[in-house]
Amino acid sequence: MIVQVIGYLAAALTTLCQIPQALRIMKTHHTKDISLTTYTVLGLGIFLWVIYGIYVNDVVIILANVATFIVVFYIWVLKIKFG
Amino acid sequence: MIVQVIGYLAAALTTLCQIPQALRIMKTHHTKDISLTTYTVLGLGIFLWVIYGIYVNDVVIILANVATFIVVFYIWVLKIKFG
Repeated sequence: MIVQVIGYLAAALTTLCQIPQALRIMKTHHTKDISLTTYTVLGLGIFLWVIYGIYVNDVVIILANVATFIVVFYIWVLKIKFG
Repeated sequence: MIVQVIGYLAAALTTLCQIPQALRIMKTHHTKDISLTTYTVLGLGIFLWVIYGIYVNDVVIILANVATFIVVFYIWVLKIKFG
């Protein structure tokens, strides 16, 4: 029981944490200090977590990583745009 | 078999991806565009993944997240330092 709560909380935090970064970039239009490699590899990794979730048929892994992927991909696009 | 490979690859990418960000900051000493909230929440989330891994006794979850936590905590310290 407590294990599931910790797991869901961990998934929620690592999913939601990218939102403030996206909001910051939307506000400042500055991405110079952000590593493109980090967001490229992170995006690929999260995409693989989605594939993994589909393979093991785990809805939580799928949903958490699809949500994170959308935000990370958006930050990646902003990084490409603003340089 | 292929499922495990995808899982390990996903874990490796989401673990290693923070290293280029740390290296970039070590080089430039600039962290202005990086969201402190993102790295605070990410650090907490990864810490909870370690606790989760200990509860479910999964060495891969523990090791991957301890490694990620070290790098993310280091980026967090640099963000505090450079502002």
